[in-house]
Amino acid sequence: MTSEPIDLTAALSSFEALWSPRIVTRVNDYDVRIAKVAGEHVWHAHDDTDEFFLVLDGELNIALRGAEAGERVVTLPAGAVFVVPRGVEHKPSSPAGASILMFEPTGTMSVGDRHDPVPGHVDATTGHELN
Amino acid sequence: MTSEPIDLTAALSSFEALWSPRIVTRVNDYDVRIAKVAGEHVWHAHDDTDEFFLVLDGELNIALRGAEAGERVVTLPAGAVFVVPRGVEHKPSSPAGASILMFEPTGTMSVGDRHDPVPGHVDATTGHELN
Repeated sequence: MTSEPIDLTAALSSFEALWSPRIVTRVNDYDVRIAKVAGEHVWHAHDDTDEFFLVLDGELNIALRGAEAGERVVTLPAGAVFVVPRGVEHKPSSPAGASILMFEPTGTMSVGDRHDPVPGHVDATTGHELN
Repeated sequence: MTSEPIDLTAALSSFEALWSPRIVTRVNDYDVRIAKVAGEHVWHAHDDTDEFFLVLDGELNIALRGAEAGERVVTLPAGAVFVVPRGVEHKPSSPAGASILMFEPTGTMSVGDRHDPVPGHVDATTGHELN
């Protein structure tokens, strides 16, 4: 009637790709995704959804910019959470690398609805299944 | 335009109550809640929503029962995730104590829509704000 618990460390060790989220489980019509990251993602925005970040390991920066508030960067050490509100342009980055967990509606694109040109190292995806 | 990151360890140290979830942030119409737990919760079911658990520290058991599948217990060590599907009766417990993170729709009652008599040590709540 239900599945088994999923160990996030084991799940993270099952893939190597950076900026390429894996869907570990689903909650109603939301995905719980994990990703390994290092270097820079791309400026993008999700017009219709907030995006939740939890840093599992390492440190994640999220640059944010808006017409009214200008640009700023928040830094999340391991064990910190942050929500990027819908519509806010943001660019995650991690100079030294990090592992992160995200909650977002199933179907949400990793590069949002609006984005700068997507560099080759960034996977534009709605998330991959864990193998 | 946005808030600041929230350190979960600091958030957990801001309260002592067991089985009394705190809302650390919101994602669209969902809450991200954290709770300290020890001992036993109560058999209950959420008829209209799945419920996501991530163990931050310690170890959590979740007993599950259903007419077809009988009763079983899943054990989540720190770093494990599990989703209780909607409608499935479950009872979390933690003999040695644990800290957990949950993801569920805002307004979801901690004791579900159906439950056994709620013991005095269990808080029947839709979650409290972090102070």
